[in-house]
Amino acid sequence: MENFVFKNDTKIIFGKGSEEKVGEEILKYGTKILLHYGGGSIKKTGLYEKILKSLKEKNIEIYELSGVQPNPVVSLVRKGIKICRENKIEFILAVGGGSVIDSAKAISMGVNYDGDVWDFFEGKAKLENTIPTGVVLTIPAAGSESSVVTVITNEDGLIKRGFHSEKLLPRFAILNPELTFTLPVFQIACGCADILAHTFERYFTQTPNVDLTDRLCEGLMKTVIENSKIAVKNPKNYDAMSQIMWASTIAHNGILGTGRVEDWASHKLGHELSALYGVTHGASLSVMFPAWMKYVYKYNINRFAQFAVRVFNIDSDFNNIEKLAIEGIKKLENHFKEIGLPTRLSELKIPLDKIELMAEKAVIKGPIGNFIKINKEDAIKIYELAK
Amino acid sequence: MENFVFKNDTKIIFGKGSEEKVGEEILKYGTKILLHYGGGSIKKTGLYEKILKSLKEKNIEIYELSGVQPNPVVSLVRKGIKICRENKIEFILAVGGGSVIDSAKAISMGVNYDGDVWDFFEGKAKLENTIPTGVVLTIPAAGSESSVVTVITNEDGLIKRGFHSEKLLPRFAILNPELTFTLPVFQIACGCADILAHTFERYFTQTPNVDLTDRLCEGLMKTVIENSKIAVKNPKNYDAMSQIMWASTIAHNGILGTGRVEDWASHKLGHELSALYGVTHGASLSVMFPAWMKYVYKYNINRFAQFAVRVFNIDSDFNNIEKLAIEGIKKLENHFKEIGLPTRLSELKIPLDKIELMAEKAVIKGPIGNFIKINKEDAIKIYELAK
Repeated sequence: MENFVFKNDTKIIFGKGSEEKVGEEILKYGTKILLHYGGGSIKKTGLYEKILKSLKEKNIEIYELSGVQPNPVVSLVRKGIKICRENKIEFILAVGGGSVIDSAKAISMGVNYDGDVWDFFEGKAKLENTIPTGVVLTIPAAGSESSVVTVITNEDGLIKRGFHSEKLLPRFAILNPELTFTLPVFQIACGCADILAHTFERYFTQTPNVDLTDRLCEGLMKTVIENSKIAVKNPKNYDAMSQIMWASTIAHNGILGTGRVEDWASHKLGHELSALYGVTHGASLSVMFPAWMKYVYKYNINRFAQFAVRVFNIDSDFNNIEKLAIEGIKKLENHFKEIGLPTRLSELKIPLDKIELMAEKAVIKGPIGNFIKINKEDAIKIYELAK
Repeated sequence: MENFVFKNDTKIIFGKGSEEKVGEEILKYGTKILLHYGGGSIKKTGLYEKILKSLKEKNIEIYELSGVQPNPVVSLVRKGIKICRENKIEFILAVGGGSVIDSAKAISMGVNYDGDVWDFFEGKAKLENTIPTGVVLTIPAAGSESSVVTVITNEDGLIKRGFHSEKLLPRFAILNPELTFTLPVFQIACGCADILAHTFERYFTQTPNVDLTDRLCEGLMKTVIENSKIAVKNPKNYDAMSQIMWASTIAHNGILGTGRVEDWASHKLGHELSALYGVTHGASLSVMFPAWMKYVYKYNINRFAQFAVRVFNIDSDFNNIEKLAIEGIKKLENHFKEIGLPTRLSELKIPLDKIELMAEKAVIKGPIGNFIKINKEDAIKIYELAK
């Protein structure tokens, strides 16, 4: 087990009707806010009106910026920063999923910074301060509602980059599983892949003696696998969606990674699919993770066998640990298929002649991952395993 | 699953050498501190000198109050409050286990309150503010290092009472497993019982559809059970003690109880053993929990069967769920015995003619627990099951 520092002070407000508390929560931080959201589905569902009611009851002055797309872009972030500066905005409320939250976080970084916000993502600037953010979550997936990360795409060159800081933690996150009831089934499945992927990035480690977080990861994975099967059949199942929603937050609030070296190669390999072809984040992960696993399992077969036995209850052949390991990966692939997710690049209609380009871009800053270090040649082989 | 609000902002600093950061952390809150500790074992181990060095490097002015005993008493708390007021103390550093931390928390409650601190424990006063506290943990057990609770004993009447408030969360908790290496084996075992008990109080619930926290609880319980066996044989095993130490915090930081109605009857039944006979907290729990389980399992046999199957891997007879449930309780009892803990009142030399008195005191404020409501007659029967 490695030394670590862990702190996460996002306040989670979970359950039916919790969005009604949004005005009350914001009032602790200011009265002038930027309301940030996506393509307007929150207007169709009635959530927009509910939030406006709660904000107006507390006399909160609202500026709006909608139009966040999946894989949020830096141009909209710049627009948000401009609005915040011009109107002396005190708080940013993100209503939506990971993309909206990441966009809100990036805006919060730029408001008090003199240069261009992309500087942070290129490692050219140090984040001194942010303005506070809060979340009403509508998509359980990214875990951005209580994570220290934002991932933004720069349209100029289609570069997708992440930035980490404790200062990015939202002040509160409102999680009402009922707000997910209008999600398309495919999006729920993608969300579940994202939650699992966040757990995999931590679980597949070479750090020894991490029994506790191993078992917590395994418990979370089992829960998400079981409940995702229910949710894609009935997206209005409150019980299943509540387990998935709370899991999405815990999978990425940092606690499951304590004391271990995390990996994150698969996310970077997947990011290239999103940056170049706009692939939904979760679908990029359901394709890239099994491929990554097939490529790396030999570097710690026991860990993959443990995954197979403890998460998928496989006990077929303990004389052959490698067989167990492979069966676990196969089970995961089958699970993704069962809930309607792609597991091959061909299903995403990604031209195979672009593999070299994607591999090159994925490792542009140097080798990726920690379970093993992935260089360009490794990346090509992993993309090929995903053909 | 129930609606909930969860926030825990204690900063965890975990690992070898982490106590060297204590001065740096305190400096964020003040330069005049009360150093609060127990019977002086920290002087024998050299920890006292290390902490003094770190504090002096940051020019922190130190007032000391030692002498905290297991089951910390309100008279010492009052003494601490007086020292803090007279010297305008800005921060309280607790160095020790749950008793020292609880005592520090209680002092932090009283400093800015005009009346007597016991008022809070009797529900006669509302906590407006506290002074900040921090922890260097030496005993993994109580989880007080990042909990919202303090439990104090009033010597006048031997009344042990708890108080809850978010304001009690320590600002930081330093967890170095090496600091536990000098603990007697019995104390490690008691700590493990305490950690398990904190998990049981949350796990044994009638709240349905709590899959995620169920599985997280089960993962934590398995980890503590496995590692406690190693630790009592070799208390200097860093790997085992690190799992136990981090589990002690997670078991009581609130996350495992999210969305569920918790119980806490067994703790209250155990408190009477401590208040009247000075029984070590963990030992009171290793006696009272199996007895409570035997009394209540019939009110939700499936939950106890799940415990048996998932935590102790019992799969003997699924045609007889009750048998599974009982076997799980038996396995737990055997585990406590295996790590050297008592499971009967007679082992604690508690006179059986005091059962009625203890039962009466346990329910003095009304029935206890939520799994089922325990009244005086129930309490008597549970104590009798522990004979």
